[in-house]
Amino acid sequence: MLRPLEHDRSGAADGARERLRDRFDIALADFLEQRSGDLGADDLTAAFHLIRRFVLADGKRLRPLFCYWGAHCALEPGDDDALIRAAASLELFHSFALVHDDIMDASELRRGELTLHRSLARTVPGRHTDRARLGVSLAILAGDLLAMWSEQMFTESGVDGDRLVQARSWLARMRNEVVVGQYLDLTLGAGSIAAAERVVTLKTARYTVTRPLQVGGALAGVPEQLHGEFERFGDPLGIAFQLRDDLLGVFGQPARTGKPAIDDLREGRPTVLIEIARTRANPRQRFEIDRRYGDPDLSEEAAEALRQAIGATGAVREVETLIEQRRGQALGVLAGMAIALPARQALERLASAVTYRHR
Amino acid sequence: MLRPLEHDRSGAADGARERLRDRFDIALADFLEQRSGDLGADDLTAAFHLIRRFVLADGKRLRPLFCYWGAHCALEPGDDDALIRAAASLELFHSFALVHDDIMDASELRRGELTLHRSLARTVPGRHTDRARLGVSLAILAGDLLAMWSEQMFTESGVDGDRLVQARSWLARMRNEVVVGQYLDLTLGAGSIAAAERVVTLKTARYTVTRPLQVGGALAGVPEQLHGEFERFGDPLGIAFQLRDDLLGVFGQPARTGKPAIDDLREGRPTVLIEIARTRANPRQRFEIDRRYGDPDLSEEAAEALRQAIGATGAVREVETLIEQRRGQALGVLAGMAIALPARQALERLASAVTYRHR
Repeated sequence: MLRPLEHDRSGAADGARERLRDRFDIALADFLEQRSGDLGADDLTAAFHLIRRFVLADGKRLRPLFCYWGAHCALEPGDDDALIRAAASLELFHSFALVHDDIMDASELRRGELTLHRSLARTVPGRHTDRARLGVSLAILAGDLLAMWSEQMFTESGVDGDRLVQARSWLARMRNEVVVGQYLDLTLGAGSIAAAERVVTLKTARYTVTRPLQVGGALAGVPEQLHGEFERFGDPLGIAFQLRDDLLGVFGQPARTGKPAIDDLREGRPTVLIEIARTRANPRQRFEIDRRYGDPDLSEEAAEALRQAIGATGAVREVETLIEQRRGQALGVLAGMAIALPARQALERLASAVTYRHR
Repeated sequence: MLRPLEHDRSGAADGARERLRDRFDIALADFLEQRSGDLGADDLTAAFHLIRRFVLADGKRLRPLFCYWGAHCALEPGDDDALIRAAASLELFHSFALVHDDIMDASELRRGELTLHRSLARTVPGRHTDRARLGVSLAILAGDLLAMWSEQMFTESGVDGDRLVQARSWLARMRNEVVVGQYLDLTLGAGSIAAAERVVTLKTARYTVTRPLQVGGALAGVPEQLHGEFERFGDPLGIAFQLRDDLLGVFGQPARTGKPAIDDLREGRPTVLIEIARTRANPRQRFEIDRRYGDPDLSEEAAEALRQAIGATGAVREVETLIEQRRGQALGVLAGMAIALPARQALERLASAVTYRHR
């Protein structure tokens, strides 16, 4: 008799998250509509359409969600529509980060569709004969525009001025950290689990969970002490999220993740998963991993052999255990936080959603 | 007997501008020093050094200057140190724009030094064997960071909160316009002087003169009507500035401009100069221009032939006349503005400096 109840409850939670997601998306669509009016120029219509489509594409809206619930940790979070707009502005920032990341990684697909530099190269007219280069240039600009729009949407959200000033300082940290994290991710050599974890903390944990919670908390004027708790909750949860991402990047089903499962293997970033696999590998497995991981021309067959070598080291089980530990650590902190009940329940559910996901 | 006096006066004005420039640079160096502390990581030292060097390299600091004097149009411009910081933040934004522009144009040199994507490719370690691609990726990130820092420096300048909010809306327009202008610059086909002027208005005039004046004016709370006058002064002056730039891009001396005089010819943007030359050209000159302008492999010899063809159309004289007209138009508006005397004198001098320059 428990199962249907469980199912119902989780269904209701999913429904609530969907409704919130819709509110973010309506706010985003509304803001983008105004920007389209600003730009005016006919010559920009095609590009604008692609940018809008990219922003509103299927996504989890995790940063707006954590921001929103961070604010609702306060007893009186303030004007909810203004909060929705401020939270949704984080999704524009995320779109900026994804557009520039996809250029750096030379990715073809994102969320099951062409990445922006690819779609711009296909669609937008220009005098360059080198279409790929034009697509990259236009996507650099599109990303720049999205970052500026994120700032503008946040500023014009309607949240009270003093709280906006407070929140902006957390936002500044978030922006700095994600760029520095990405920088380290590109330059870091292989060889250290600790170094890989530091990148994960900056690039994912702070960026996806901790800072959005703190931005939201500041928007609602939560007590100072809560900001420290957001960090002790958000950092381990965000690391668990990234560890799941590492696994999906190697073993995920492209039909669900929306991107080829071979991209990460070809890119060869020193993820925590790979560093653990390297540490645990016997000489034969180590040889297999070192010669294949990061090979830009890796074939599907070789990728499968590489996946088996990684799995055979036991690294997957170790990472699953780590995910459990980090999630437990986060939930332990959450249990001790003096916050409103709906926020507590929503954060518990989000903690599960980001660690037990398939995409 | 007039000459030495002229010389002295202009020397004194140059000296005042130099002192102001030093104040901007000290504020920038101070802000960057703090950011270096934030970043902390040893792995970032080399990149940070290159970014700092790029920002503080020889440049005209035009946007901070116009912003500063826009504020000093008010009777009581407010805390001057805070204003210096807010104005200097525009230079960080400009550095961001230059870094990303240089990537899009695949430029090798800027201000007589390697462009940032080139110097990062040379200096910073990374696991990629494709150094050029790594340099581009890191420079995209460095540009992103500079844009964020610009926002942060502006926010933390110390200017009164309400005025900052007012100024931020002009700043948002400036940011949007320069990106849209650059976008049009990359996608625009040849063939229209009017279309070329629209790009110039967005990408240079608004960005370099009009919006910085308005940002400064808002920072000091100038009367509403002055914002319209800033535009009627700034737009023609900014266009004159860009027309001078067009001429320098084709005929400038690399030793003075700090970049090869062949880059613009190879890039082949439809500048006002070129559109005028095309309109005035006889069939033979037109043939010469159309086949050489925008040829990415243009030789030095062919470039010289192209320069002669452009000059022979009479386009250079026409552009010089246009520069004079636009400058006159701007000075006419300035004469009617009810502003403080030091600002009036400084803006007169700046109007000459940006239109009669060699770099």
